[in-house]
Amino acid sequence: MKSLKNPDLKEWAFLAKRPSKSIAELDEIVDEVFDNIRQKGDKALFEYSLKFDKAKLKSLKIEQDELKTSSKNISKKLRNAIDIAYSNISKFHKAQKEKVQKIETTSGVVCWRESRGIEKVGIYIPGGSAPLFSTVLMLAIPAKLAGCKEIILCTPPDKNGKIDPTILYVANLVGVTSVFSVGGIQAIGAMTFGTKSIPAVSKIFGPGNQYVTAAKQRAQNFGVAIDMPAGPSEVLIIADKNADAEFVAADLLSQAEHGADSQVILLSTSDKMIEATQSELKKQLKKLPRKEVAAEALKNSLAIQFKTENECMLFSNLYAPEHLILACENGDELANKVVNAGSVFIGKYACESAGDYASGTNHTLPTNGYARNCSGVSLDSFVRKITFQKISKKGIQNIGPAIEEMAEAEQLLHTKMR
Amino acid sequence: MKSLKNPDLKEWAFLAKRPSKSIAELDEIVDEVFDNIRQKGDKALFEYSLKFDKAKLKSLKIEQDELKTSSKNISKKLRNAIDIAYSNISKFHKAQKEKVQKIETTSGVVCWRESRGIEKVGIYIPGGSAPLFSTVLMLAIPAKLAGCKEIILCTPPDKNGKIDPTILYVANLVGVTSVFSVGGIQAIGAMTFGTKSIPAVSKIFGPGNQYVTAAKQRAQNFGVAIDMPAGPSEVLIIADKNADAEFVAADLLSQAEHGADSQVILLSTSDKMIEATQSELKKQLKKLPRKEVAAEALKNSLAIQFKTENECMLFSNLYAPEHLILACENGDELANKVVNAGSVFIGKYACESAGDYASGTNHTLPTNGYARNCSGVSLDSFVRKITFQKISKKGIQNIGPAIEEMAEAEQLLHTKMR
Repeated sequence: MKSLKNPDLKEWAFLAKRPSKSIAELDEIVDEVFDNIRQKGDKALFEYSLKFDKAKLKSLKIEQDELKTSSKNISKKLRNAIDIAYSNISKFHKAQKEKVQKIETTSGVVCWRESRGIEKVGIYIPGGSAPLFSTVLMLAIPAKLAGCKEIILCTPPDKNGKIDPTILYVANLVGVTSVFSVGGIQAIGAMTFGTKSIPAVSKIFGPGNQYVTAAKQRAQNFGVAIDMPAGPSEVLIIADKNADAEFVAADLLSQAEHGADSQVILLSTSDKMIEATQSELKKQLKKLPRKEVAAEALKNSLAIQFKTENECMLFSNLYAPEHLILACENGDELANKVVNAGSVFIGKYACESAGDYASGTNHTLPTNGYARNCSGVSLDSFVRKITFQKISKKGIQNIGPAIEEMAEAEQLLHTKMR
Repeated sequence: MKSLKNPDLKEWAFLAKRPSKSIAELDEIVDEVFDNIRQKGDKALFEYSLKFDKAKLKSLKIEQDELKTSSKNISKKLRNAIDIAYSNISKFHKAQKEKVQKIETTSGVVCWRESRGIEKVGIYIPGGSAPLFSTVLMLAIPAKLAGCKEIILCTPPDKNGKIDPTILYVANLVGVTSVFSVGGIQAIGAMTFGTKSIPAVSKIFGPGNQYVTAAKQRAQNFGVAIDMPAGPSEVLIIADKNADAEFVAADLLSQAEHGADSQVILLSTSDKMIEATQSELKKQLKKLPRKEVAAEALKNSLAIQFKTENECMLFSNLYAPEHLILACENGDELANKVVNAGSVFIGKYACESAGDYASGTNHTLPTNGYARNCSGVSLDSFVRKITFQKISKKGIQNIGPAIEEMAEAEQLLHTKMR
C-alpha cells in the first residue's frame, strides 16, 4: 500500500480517480449473443451453456423438488447464520415502506404517492468458486417485501449442470419464483427478451463480470432497467490516532481479498496509525489464503496522511466510496459530514463485513464514484412510486385559472378548464 | 382516432406497443460534439451556438442582473399563477422528505438511512416557441428542497442571443444557481465534462428533442446519471358511460397538441361514450390553434371498447401510460388496481393539465412503457439515501458468528470478527 503525506490540493482529483476501464469493445459480443437469443430462444441458451459452462443441460428451469430439498445439503450452523441475516435484512428493509400521505395542496386538490412493486424482476448471481448466496438475500428480500409478483433468478451451472445448493436453499427460503441454470451475457439476454423457458423481466439486478456488466448496460436499450452501473468493490477508512490498527488492517484486507481490482484507501491524520496499519497488513497478509489477490489489490491502494480530520472528510466526499468506515472516536460527528458514500460504518466494531452479510443494510452499493449520484439498492429499487391526484369541482375552480394562464404562456392553448 | 371493439387478447401486446424509434444513428453526432467540447471547452460551445442557434454570444452565463430584472417582463397575472404552482409543488415535494428511522436489527446493531442532496445537478430546458418554465418549477423546486448545492440550468438562446424572460424569472424565483445560454447536444456535453464557464454536474434532468435524448443517454457512459429515458408524451383515459365526453375529448386533445408523436388512448366499456368522444374531438379540433399537430397525433391513436372495466384496467397496466385519467364514478376503486402508470388523475375534474402545471405532483414522468420499471421525478431523484450502521461490542458479538459462517461459505476467509 503506497503511503502519501499531505498531497497538494491540486492532486486530490487525480488521487480520487479510479482506474478507467472501457467495456465498449464488449458491445459486439453482447449484440451477437442478444441477436442469437432473440432468434433462437432457449436453443441458443443450451448452446451457450455447453460452450461456456461446459454443461449439457436437459432443462433450464430448476425443479421445485430440487429447490425444496436443497436444505439437506446445508449445515445447521450455516442455516442459522442465514436466518439471522434474513431477519436483520427484513427488519431494515421493511422499515423503508412508505406510508401513504395525502396532501391537500389547495382546497379541493389532494395529491399522494403509492408504491407498487415492479411486477417482474430478475436477479443475476454469478457462478465460480464463491456461491454468492448473500446477494440472493440482499436482492430477493426487498423484492418480496415490495410485492414484486415474479422474482426470477439466473445463475450459471457448473460443468455437471448443477447449481450450488446454498444458492438454491436461499432462493427457496426467500421466495424466489423460479431459478434458471443460465449465466453470463446469455442470462441477461434471456431476461431482457424472454424465451420459452425464461420470462422477460422489467428490471435486472445483481453483480457479474465485465461481460455481464456490458450486457446489463446494453439491456437498457431494450426498455429494461438495471439496479446500477457495476464496478470493483471499494472501502475507504478514516482512522484516528486511537483506532485499532489490527482492526483497520483486517478491514482493508477483507475488502482487498474480494478481487485484485478492489480499491482500498486509508486516511488518517496520524502517521503512527498509518505505519502501524502498514505493518499489521504485512503480518495479516501472510496468513491469508487468498493472499495473491489481496496483495495485488493493495498494490493499487493508498494510505494518505492529511493535516486535519476535515481534510480527510473532504477527500472521502470527493472520492465517494462504496463503503466508508469511520474508525474514529467522534464517528457520529463525522457521519454528519458524509455527503457522498454508499454505506457508512461507525465505530471500531462496525466492520464492512457486517454490512456485507448481516447488519441489515443492503450490500448492493454504488461503486466507481457513482455514490455521487446513486443510492444503494433498497426497497425503493423494487417499486414505482405512482402519484395520484383527486380534484373536486371546487379544487379545479381554485387552480384552473392558474393552469390556463401558464398553459397560454407555454402556448398550449387547448388547456381549457371545466 | 381509430376505434376498435373487443380486440382479441392475442392482439393486446401489439396494441400496447409504442412506435419504435432508434436513436443509434445519432450517437456519431453526439460523440463528435462531446469530443469537441472536451478538447476546446467554451470555444466549442460558442461555435455551436453560432452554427445551430444563429446566435453570436459574448458570454455563456446569464448575469445576475438579468435574472433579477426578468420579473419586469412578466405580467402580474402570470406571476400569480406561477406562485400558486410553486406553492403546490413545494407542499407536495416537501412531504416526500424521509424522517430518519433508526432500526435496531439485533441488540447492539443500529441501522438507518439519511438523505443527502446530490451536490451538483443540471437542468436542461429546450428552446423553441414554447418556453417550458413549468419544467423549471418541476425540477428546481425538488432540487432545492433536497439540498442540492449547485443547481445549474442550460437552455438555448434565440437568434438574438436572448433567453425567454419567463424561464429566467422562474429560475431566479426558485433559486437556480446559474443559468447558461447553451442548448442541444452541446449543453449536455458541457454539463457532463465541464468547461471553464459551465461546471460539470453529477446528474442531468429535463426534456429535449432526439439529439438531447441521445446525448443524455451517452452522458451515462461518462459517470453522469440522468432523470429517466425520454419519449413522446402519452395519456390513457378510462371513461365510464357517465363520463363527460366534452371533458374526455378536451383531455385527449390537450395531450395531442403537445406534439405530432404524442400518444393518446381512450378505453371504455360504452360504445356511446366512444362515439360521443369521437364527435366531440371533431368539434373541438376545428377550434384548436395547433390543429395540425393534434390531428397528426390522433391519427396514431386508439379508442378501444372492452367488455368489462376490469379488461380496461388490465390493458392500461399492460400499456403502462405516463398519464392515466380515470374518468369513472368508481375512480377510487379503480385507482387501487393501477399497477403501471406514471401519474393518475381521479374523477371528472382531474384533467392532465392540472398535473402538468399546478396540482403539485411532478410532470416529469416515465413514457414509452418505462412506467413498468421507473417512477416519475420526485424529491428522491435529487438525493442519495446513504445507509449507516453503528455497532457496539455487544452487537458484533451477537452477529459476528453468523458473519464468519457466511463469509466462510462464500470463501472469503479473512472476515474474522473482533
